[in-house]
Formats: sequence, structure tokens, C-alpha cells
Amino acid sequence: MTITLSAFAQSPDRGRGLARDMGVRWALEETGQQYDVRLLSFAAMKEPPHLALNPFGQIPTFQEGETRLFESGAIILHIATHHEGLLPADPPARARAILWMFAALSTIEPPIVERSFATMFDRDAPWFDERMRAIEDRIAQRLGVLARYLGDADWLEDAFSAGDLVMITVLRRLAGSTVLADHPAIAAYIARGEQRPAFARAFDAQLAVFNNASATTPDA
Amino acid sequence: MTITLSAFAQSPDRGRGLARDMGVRWALEETGQQYDVRLLSFAAMKEPPHLALNPFGQIPTFQEGETRLFESGAIILHIATHHEGLLPADPPARARAILWMFAALSTIEPPIVERSFATMFDRDAPWFDERMRAIEDRIAQRLGVLARYLGDADWLEDAFSAGDLVMITVLRRLAGSTVLADHPAIAAYIARGEQRPAFARAFDAQLAVFNNASATTPDA
Repeated sequence: MTITLSAFAQSPDRGRGLARDMGVRWALEETGQQYDVRLLSFAAMKEPPHLALNPFGQIPTFQEGETRLFESGAIILHIATHHEGLLPADPPARARAILWMFAALSTIEPPIVERSFATMFDRDAPWFDERMRAIEDRIAQRLGVLARYLGDADWLEDAFSAGDLVMITVLRRLAGSTVLADHPAIAAYIARGEQRPAFARAFDAQLAVFNNASATTPDA
Repeated sequence: MTITLSAFAQSPDRGRGLARDMGVRWALEETGQQYDVRLLSFAAMKEPPHLALNPFGQIPTFQEGETRLFESGAIILHIATHHEGLLPADPPARARAILWMFAALSTIEPPIVERSFATMFDRDAPWFDERMRAIEDRIAQRLGVLARYLGDADWLEDAFSAGDLVMITVLRRLAGSTVLADHPAIAAYIARGEQRPAFARAFDAQLAVFNNASATTPDA
């Protein structure tokens, strides 16, 4: 069966691999799966054919035969469950790897997304600096916990897993921030993920989409 | 093997079942599992024995033999994977149920938690009303999508699943808000969840902890 993802035709991150298809592409590369990509304009994401796949009108979606999914975390867990390479076989270790997927999305990501929202929408508000400090304090507290947990280890548990893949995908949104500069152990953890060959293949694939869109769009 | 959860000795929600042990208790009741509860003071949550179970120092944690977990979403998925009652057996339907767990935690919950934070920490700020409007617009947009998706159905997919359990647990934080009053279909969906016998058993168990703490603490 063919796997088909949806992704931005023109990613707002300009090819930095911060859109939510990146983690799914990375998971497919780690598990050696081929996939097709259906590229969508911002308008097409809000039209009935795509809303039938994801009522929230977002990318990525995942189709493989009868299986139709959205939510990048759910898609990555589906890939990790059905193919070798991202989850240990031993049940307690497997549960720990899945735990870190939830920790990434439920504990680490929310203040990181709030930071992106504040940067986009509140920059001109008189309370912007105060709000950013509050958000970055919340992020820093969590990065501190994560850094202490990691200690000298390369990955969150014994071996690289879907938990690391989702965590690093979430943390990459902090690239260039001072809060990340204050946590060099977390920056090094992100870098270890980015050095994996599967990451590079996924990154190059999404960058090629951006470069191709730029080459064919006069004002890009 | 015995299942042991951790929970607040004195829940800050005063027994309304909004703490994160509630969904885990509900999942254990839906699947007919017995469990013990270890009650923790706020101080004990930040001390080494509990931090060894959850480095973020939060409840609930889950222990069963060699399996030691935190993150309520991961615990609920673990319970749903290992016991009958919360996930369909058919693989595409099973993936859909898990999808809604991620949608609840990753798409629906973050602005609901932001609303709680703003109510707790920003109430006296001059920009509080503006911020609440922005947050409630984000919540309302997502509740609108969810209500349209549900339509006349009782549950998100063909039968009640771990996806509904997590979604309803997340939505219950909006109890009493105007944003929920504006979405009666969502309020009815929450009420359907709350009418399940397993929900009632879980709710009563956490309420008994609160009532017992109140009875033994003079100033509660």
C-alpha cells in the first residue's frame, strides 16, 4: 500500500523543517518507508477535500489504504507501531518511549507554541516583553528538568526512539532563541538528532519542496 | 501485579475531578482494573522519591511491576493497549481512536490550559480582558470544529474509546465558562461521558480523597 502525506506547498518556515510534516517524514525515513507527498496551498487546506481528512484544516495528514489519520503525534506513533526502528520490543521500555512522545507534545511543546504565537501576534503589545519573560521562564524550567534527566546520555532512554524523534522535533522550534542558548545540553541533544542520516533525508526532502516553490513563484 | 497511581493528597480543584489523575482513574474503571493510590503533598511531589518517578514533579505516576510511567496521556494509552474496553481491535479504527487522544492533548488542550494560567496569574494585569478574548477565540474555533465533526453522533468514532475519554477529560476544564455555554453540543458530549458508570466510580474515588482530606485538615 502507498503512504501519502500532505504538506505545505509553500512552507511558512522557508524550508527550515519546522512544519509538522517534518517529524512524520523523519519517522518514515527511520523506518525505511517510501511515501508520496500531496502539496497543499493555504486555501486548499481549508476546502472540503482536505477537511474530510483533517477537520481542523491542518497538515500533515496520512493515508495508507483504509487508514486515514491526522495529528503528527498520532501518525508518528502509528508508523512506529507498524514498522521496526522506533520502539523497543520489551513492553516496559516500549511504554517509556511512548511516554516521551506524550511528554514532548503535552508538557514541553505548549509553552514553545505560545512563544511562537506571542512572537507572531503580540509583538507590538505594550505587555509583549512581560509576556515573553513569563513564557520563557516556563520553557526554561522544563528544559532544565529535561537536561537533568538526560545527564550524560545521548537519548532519553537506552536507545534512540520515537520519543526522542518527537522531542527533538518539538525542541527545534527554539532554534536561535536565547532560552536554548542557556541550555547547551539541550542544544547538543537536538544536534545529535539532526546528525542522524534519516533526519537529513527528511530535512532535504522538505527543503526541496520549498526551493522548488521558490523557483516557480516570482515573488517568493 | 498491583497498579499504583499517585495523586494529590489535597487536590487544588476541591474535588471537581479536574486533576490529571481523573482520566487515568476513569480508564482503569472502564477496563475493570483495580488500583492503589499513593497520595502526595505538594512538597512531596518535588522530593527525590517522586522525582525518580516523574522528573517534572507532577501527578499522576503509574507503577505496575517493571513499568513506571508518567504523563496521563501515556498512562491512559498504556492501560487501553493492555486491557479490553477502550480501543477497537480493527487496526484503522484503533489508529483513529488513538488519533483523538493526540488531538485532545495537542490541539484542544493547550489553549484551555492557557486560559487556566491566565485566570490564575494574569487576572490583575491591565491586558487581562484582551488576553482572555484572544484565548477564548482560539478555544471557540476548535470547539466549533469538534462540534461539526461530532454532528449527531454520541462519540468521535463508532464507539466510545480512549479518544473520547481523553477528549472529555480535557474539555471538562471548561465547566462553567461562557465559551462552553456557547457550544451546547460540546456540553452535551461532556455530559454523555460523565453519565458513564465508570466515570462516576472514578469521580467518586477522587472526591472521597478530597472529602477525607477536608475532614482531617482544620483549615480546609
